[in-house]
Amino acid sequence: MHRSQEPDQVGKPSTRDRIHEVIFETETPSGKAFDVVLLVFIVASVIIVLLESMEIYRQRFGTYLTALEWFFTIAFTIEYLLRIYSVYKPGKYIFSFFGIIDLLAILPTYIGLFIIGSHYLVVIRALRLLRIFRVFKLVNFLRQGQIIIESLRRSIPKITVFFFFILIVVTIIGSIMHVLEGGFNPGFSSIPKSIYWAIVTLTTVGYGDITPQSDPGRFLSAFVMVLGYSIIAVPTGIIASDLLRVPSSKEDVSNQSCRYCASEGHDPDAVFCKYCGERLNP
Amino acid sequence: MHRSQEPDQVGKPSTRDRIHEVIFETETPSGKAFDVVLLVFIVASVIIVLLESMEIYRQRFGTYLTALEWFFTIAFTIEYLLRIYSVYKPGKYIFSFFGIIDLLAILPTYIGLFIIGSHYLVVIRALRLLRIFRVFKLVNFLRQGQIIIESLRRSIPKITVFFFFILIVVTIIGSIMHVLEGGFNPGFSSIPKSIYWAIVTLTTVGYGDITPQSDPGRFLSAFVMVLGYSIIAVPTGIIASDLLRVPSSKEDVSNQSCRYCASEGHDPDAVFCKYCGERLNP
Amino acid sequence: MHRSQEPDQVGKPSTRDRIHEVIFETETPSGKAFDVVLLVFIVASVIIVLLESMEIYRQRFGTYLTALEWFFTIAFTIEYLLRIYSVYKPGKYIFSFFGIIDLLAILPTYIGLFIIGSHYLVVIRALRLLRIFRVFKLVNFLRQGQIIIESLRRSIPKITVFFFFILIVVTIIGSIMHVLEGGFNPGFSSIPKSIYWAIVTLTTVGYGDITPQSDPGRFLSAFVMVLGYSIIAVPTGIIASDLLRVPSSKEDVSNQSCRYCASEGHDPDAVFCKYCGERLNP
Amino acid sequence: MHRSQEPDQVGKPSTRDRIHEVIFETETPSGKAFDVVLLVFIVASVIIVLLESMEIYRQRFGTYLTALEWFFTIAFTIEYLLRIYSVYKPGKYIFSFFGIIDLLAILPTYIGLFIIGSHYLVVIRALRLLRIFRVFKLVNFLRQGQIIIESLRRSIPKITVFFFFILIVVTIIGSIMHVLEGGFNPGFSSIPKSIYWAIVTLTTVGYGDITPQSDPGRFLSAFVMVLGYSIIAVPTGIIASDLLRVPSSKEDVSNQSCRYCASEGHDPDAVFCKYCGERLNP
Repeated sequence: MHRSQEPDQVGKPSTRDRIHEVIFETETPSGKAFDVVLLVFIVASVIIVLLESMEIYRQRFGTYLTALEWFFTIAFTIEYLLRIYSVYKPGKYIFSFFGIIDLLAILPTYIGLFIIGSHYLVVIRALRLLRIFRVFKLVNFLRQGQIIIESLRRSIPKITVFFFFILIVVTIIGSIMHVLEGGFNPGFSSIPKSIYWAIVTLTTVGYGDITPQSDPGRFLSAFVMVLGYSIIAVPTGIIASDLLRVPSSKEDVSNQSCRYCASEGHDPDAVFCKYCGERLNP
Repeated sequence: MHRSQEPDQVGKPSTRDRIHEVIFETETPSGKAFDVVLLVFIVASVIIVLLESMEIYRQRFGTYLTALEWFFTIAFTIEYLLRIYSVYKPGKYIFSFFGIIDLLAILPTYIGLFIIGSHYLVVIRALRLLRIFRVFKLVNFLRQGQIIIESLRRSIPKITVFFFFILIVVTIIGSIMHVLEGGFNPGFSSIPKSIYWAIVTLTTVGYGDITPQSDPGRFLSAFVMVLGYSIIAVPTGIIASDLLRVPSSKEDVSNQSCRYCASEGHDPDAVFCKYCGERLNP
Repeated sequence: MHRSQEPDQVGKPSTRDRIHEVIFETETPSGKAFDVVLLVFIVASVIIVLLESMEIYRQRFGTYLTALEWFFTIAFTIEYLLRIYSVYKPGKYIFSFFGIIDLLAILPTYIGLFIIGSHYLVVIRALRLLRIFRVFKLVNFLRQGQIIIESLRRSIPKITVFFFFILIVVTIIGSIMHVLEGGFNPGFSSIPKSIYWAIVTLTTVGYGDITPQSDPGRFLSAFVMVLGYSIIAVPTGIIASDLLRVPSSKEDVSNQSCRYCASEGHDPDAVFCKYCGERLNP
Repeated sequence: MHRSQEPDQVGKPSTRDRIHEVIFETETPSGKAFDVVLLVFIVASVIIVLLESMEIYRQRFGTYLTALEWFFTIAFTIEYLLRIYSVYKPGKYIFSFFGIIDLLAILPTYIGLFIIGSHYLVVIRALRLLRIFRVFKLVNFLRQGQIIIESLRRSIPKITVFFFFILIVVTIIGSIMHVLEGGFNPGFSSIPKSIYWAIVTLTTVGYGDITPQSDPGRFLSAFVMVLGYSIIAVPTGIIASDLLRVPSSKEDVSNQSCRYCASEGHDPDAVFCKYCGERLNP
């Protein structure tokens, strides 16, 4: 973590190293300050995207919003270039997940200069929000996120099976409802539409834009509802039981100091002390 | 708990002490009686707030409702003054959470005398309900509440991460839906509105006031529903697994009698006997 | 269980005993047959109640339905009288939970003779369904029900606290929404109506008959939805964790044979063998 | 698994054996390839069923869809005949679950030749999707599915009791609502319709096509919602706690190698090594 302890030049760190420290590190004061500013910029730039989409604000404050949009775009562009400059392997960064997100955060505004009616770019601009995860390292919450993600990763195969099952169920139910109500109820005029209804019902969302109008249709609906109400328990049960297995041991390690060298701050999944190499207590 | 055992005057307790006992204690007979009366008053005064908001009752029983409102306000005012009088550090009470709630319970009626159309005060009057928590000490349920709160407190960091994740998801999905349906569907005319729809859908509430009308919109909706239906499992899993870790040891202690002095009634989080100081069994 | 082993008359059992065996016992052949017939009668009589409430069937088959209703009423009346006759303490039976349900199952039809337009009695007639629980002893499922009920009983105090909390939350949110939208949105014209909306939203039912129409209203709604979506985890977590604590030991005992006398069929909550009195293994 | 190790002919396997291997085996290269092709065919043929149900596609591409439908039907017919041919006991296969599904996948197209307006057959054609489960053996996910199914099987008795309870609750609540609102609200004109509403509400689906319009009706609705919101916890708790009991030991065995002969790949529910017969570690 502490680059200065690495024997890379012994003397004063280069400008490039200092830029790297500010942008990429999260535990030095300047790195923290940078992250906070970045967080504010990301949130502010997304709020501008939201405001621009609202008729009233676009008409009243259109010029200001465009100006701010350019301000943030230029700020993110400088940040992007500095990231490329300060990293040892720019190619790897550029094509990494966050590298692409960083690029997507600035591209739409430039593209908007050349293409008229680039309405669709608004989605890409909203993707900026994903940059928040980069800053998230700042917060203490990261470890908690890791616990959730770890247990979700364990749950993935079981939950995938579950979704295949749901997909098959809604297709068959959608077909039955299409046959039952398709003749007189425009909401069930095609099977894909009926599948949409089945998903709306099974997930207990229940918009009510498509509802059964015959007695057999209502009966099948009631069955789908009770089914959905019950099988919601399956993913919950899976995740709850996987959560129960994962975190206990993990938390212990990450809060633990090595018994040999008293060092702290070990990764949640560390088995050996990263400083002296002795085994950590499970 | 037993003030009389404290060597504060040895002789007869002062009026101030007796008022304190009645108002603040919950285990003496007079304290219990006071709490029951207070509970009835709080519930009754909130019911009056509800009735006043209903056209029919306001027109028919308006005078009675106002009279009752004044009766409860004066009762609560007397109680509030007695609380200030009987407490050793009134400043600390006044600015405590319950002190402010107690004040807010009486202020709106007085303010209504001077300001016409103080419609917004109805919210503050409804806050009276929070005073119920004060009386709640009366009931045996408090300990159960502590178990829930304790496990919720443990879950907070994980659940916060989860909400950040949801916030980012609904923003991105809202943007996509705005692009997909914004052109022809007034429900998606702006991104904030689309985010509102995404929340309605993801949480499986599904009002149906805004629904997708195109095939790609329906497809994305179905995806959001299944996502919401699945990730509802995450907070449940978190809380369930945290609940499983917390209460077992707690409950044991609270039902346990000390092995050294046979005393009972220890607090759920006690580690040592409160009478003889020996360690309680975990 | 085996009345014949009881030294009540040594010789042939009396008619009264035999009636008792048929009606109340569930493990003798005649008792089982009686229970099956009763189950069919109960379900059939409730289906008739449902059909009578439907315009089409009432008009077409009105006479048959009335005839069948009288058939079942008379059958249940005979059963009721036989139950009173065969029981040693009729008074205790008559005023027991099932005794009252049994009486309510037959009363409405007789009352309908004297009172015209006894529409409300339909509810009482539907209560017949509760008689199913009596027959339920027949099925092997009873034990499973006991496990659920046991863990629910453990959860009651925690869940009661939870409901008080929800009640307070929906009252306060209802008041805020009444202030925010009450002026122009008829759905929030009174606080009780707004509380109804808050419950519809918090429980993720989401009828859509009352929806917010202003931006602040939508924002608060979104908050309520996310709140409801999250706190649904609390009762689930409570019940899941209580279920995990209860059943394991119970099931062991109920499937276990006594180590001293090899007898089986012990109650789930038995601690000692009911035949030889030795301690069962936990 | 490896038929070639069976002493069935020592020499070259017969054509029949090779067909069997291709069609039924999943771990040989040819078997895997066959399964992948079959999976693609099943999904494609179901997509055609969906497209045919949509007016636009039926009108534009009707001829192509019919051609493709015949192509898949003939492919499935050949597969079906080969299955019958290659299996040692064709009768057992034909009347097995998958045998019937395989037949149903091809029948509708042939029947459609003779019967005009065989609209209902679309449901049977959608059942083809169930054939996916046959191919599912291919994927590693199967074991995960077994864990879910195993814990669901354990939960069945408890969940059945739960559903009987729900059925009784919605019938009684439906009757009450019919009495309360039936007079003026067409949505509650009959008890079955009111039961449908009760299910829509209890499962938190909440279409909003039928909503209470009186104050007592709203009050009862709110009660049903809170009830549904709470008891959703019961099946979740049941399944979560059963999931927690099942998989741990199972997974161990399936990942374990025998301590006596070092063989691996034991079934999740194996107790003894399938190669040397020694007990596997639990």
